[in-house]
Amino acid sequence: MIRTRLTERFGLDHPIVSAPMALVSGGRLAAAVSNAGGLGLIGGGYAGMLGGEPDLGAEFAAAGNARVGVGFIVWALDRAPSLLDEALMHRPRCLFLSFGDARPFARKAEDAGVPVICQVQTLAQAEEALDLGAAAVVAQGTEAGGHGGQRATLPFVPEVADLVARRAPGTLVLAAGGIGDGRGLAAALMLGADGAVVGSRFWASREALTPDAMVARAQGASGDDTVRTTAVDALRGVDWPAQYSYRMLKNRLTEEWAGRESEARAAFGSLRAAYDKARAEGDLDTVAVVVGEVAGLIADRPPAAAVLARMVEEAEAAMQDGAARIV
Amino acid sequence: MIRTRLTERFGLDHPIVSAPMALVSGGRLAAAVSNAGGLGLIGGGYAGMLGGEPDLGAEFAAAGNARVGVGFIVWALDRAPSLLDEALMHRPRCLFLSFGDARPFARKAEDAGVPVICQVQTLAQAEEALDLGAAAVVAQGTEAGGHGGQRATLPFVPEVADLVARRAPGTLVLAAGGIGDGRGLAAALMLGADGAVVGSRFWASREALTPDAMVARAQGASGDDTVRTTAVDALRGVDWPAQYSYRMLKNRLTEEWAGRESEARAAFGSLRAAYDKARAEGDLDTVAVVVGEVAGLIADRPPAAAVLARMVEEAEAAMQDGAARIV
Repeated sequence: MIRTRLTERFGLDHPIVSAPMALVSGGRLAAAVSNAGGLGLIGGGYAGMLGGEPDLGAEFAAAGNARVGVGFIVWALDRAPSLLDEALMHRPRCLFLSFGDARPFARKAEDAGVPVICQVQTLAQAEEALDLGAAAVVAQGTEAGGHGGQRATLPFVPEVADLVARRAPGTLVLAAGGIGDGRGLAAALMLGADGAVVGSRFWASREALTPDAMVARAQGASGDDTVRTTAVDALRGVDWPAQYSYRMLKNRLTEEWAGRESEARAAFGSLRAAYDKARAEGDLDTVAVVVGEVAGLIADRPPAAAVLARMVEEAEAAMQDGAARIV
Repeated sequence: MIRTRLTERFGLDHPIVSAPMALVSGGRLAAAVSNAGGLGLIGGGYAGMLGGEPDLGAEFAAAGNARVGVGFIVWALDRAPSLLDEALMHRPRCLFLSFGDARPFARKAEDAGVPVICQVQTLAQAEEALDLGAAAVVAQGTEAGGHGGQRATLPFVPEVADLVARRAPGTLVLAAGGIGDGRGLAAALMLGADGAVVGSRFWASREALTPDAMVARAQGASGDDTVRTTAVDALRGVDWPAQYSYRMLKNRLTEEWAGRESEARAAFGSLRAAYDKARAEGDLDTVAVVVGEVAGLIADRPPAAAVLARMVEEAEAAMQDGAARIV
């Protein structure tokens, strides 16, 4: 077992948080992660605005008695803020907020005694997270799957850690993006993180809501096969703020549109119906297989508990090997 | 001291290589790094095609008796291949090749008994480096300053390490991009690298050819203040292959042009004279301050030997702290 400030503060066995991935992180995955000693999160996602999203109450029910947290896309929660009240009624272990002005929601969570974890993509956003008194700041790198920014995890985490040490040393620092095995977890700890937020590796775990056909595509891919673009959101008509782009496996749609961001913006929503149809039909030449650069490290779909155990074992081995190199 | 396969193979005290940065890594920097126990490289850069580049013979002379290596931009060396013969006459410690088809040059170096280090930006390029029998493969992440690709260091290094373990386990793996202090070095070792190639941190060391005014700008910047774009090369008329972009501090020129890559390409060379004039005048609103995301970790301009000592000390502390977390 690896002990950090994260494991101590949250009473965990392992310094690993499962990312609250929209349409992927249901109660079953969150519970599996928490029951195995990590911190499992339900993905509150788009707060219902996207359609086809799992029902929050049902997912908390699926988590049973496991102590799980919940995460939201903040700009979407802005449009359906009552979802937060519903989520807080379930007494989540934490509230994980990304992609927007977290202040009003953070205050509500704080009033309910729920610790707030803010995910950030820039140093400026990390400052804002400290301003609102977040319990933890997640420095998310561009290599992450799904939505994110431009900074890369390896240099971003220590810069955030330095900021936290200067301004609010009691705040936890977590690393997200590119962490798919124990080597990545050990690296995150070296960079000054108290733990890792893991997305893609749990996306490809047994309890995730991810369709098997998507995991199969990722298993055949390398990190070279992913792309970060704003074009897909524009074409499918999801109104993401301009600074956030979307990483996924390259497919026919991205081959046609990635790099033509302003054209895609001008065609906002033009593929909405086609995209929804493709999702219903499982047409992965159109629908995004949302996985990060760690696709190249994913070869199987084990239970979440096995993912956790393997990551911790590998991280321990890497750190012991590192210490043994000092002469 | 930290012992790895890199230190053993090259007879170093520290698993740190200074990047062969064009216009920055002269003989004085390379010698300072090698004399302090790392592997110092002279930047052969554009092989003379850019103008204003240091003379290779003079830089080897400046390195004195230190065992330094040399690096080239391969697509530029293609246009002046005799530079390699000149370089090999100086019996460099290694030949570092990036950005192009290294095969013809690698063969010459091998014939001269000089080990070849290939820097790659994709897994496909890593395969090519193994095909040509490189002594070491450098997995360079997009967070690096200067020219590079799209992959991020944290997930790219373990994927390359896995490839090497499968195909040519005797080959060294080095990590480049985003490594500016001992936390980054320790992280690189966790990821499976045998050592780190460090650019920006040596760019801001006393012996580098970097103008003070550039280092001062980087010291005032965070990693948020850098941008990766192909527009600047297009406008200044330097014919980089399309897959390589250029990371630098944001300035007036990038604020105007970054994100307008195809327009800039259409205006190829239109700012050549203005750019050269700005360089001569030290106008950093136009000329690129070429530093990576680790700009946010750079606060001083110490001698290269102090950079090395500090990185190793920090890395040792991080790895010892990591091992102590295992319970």
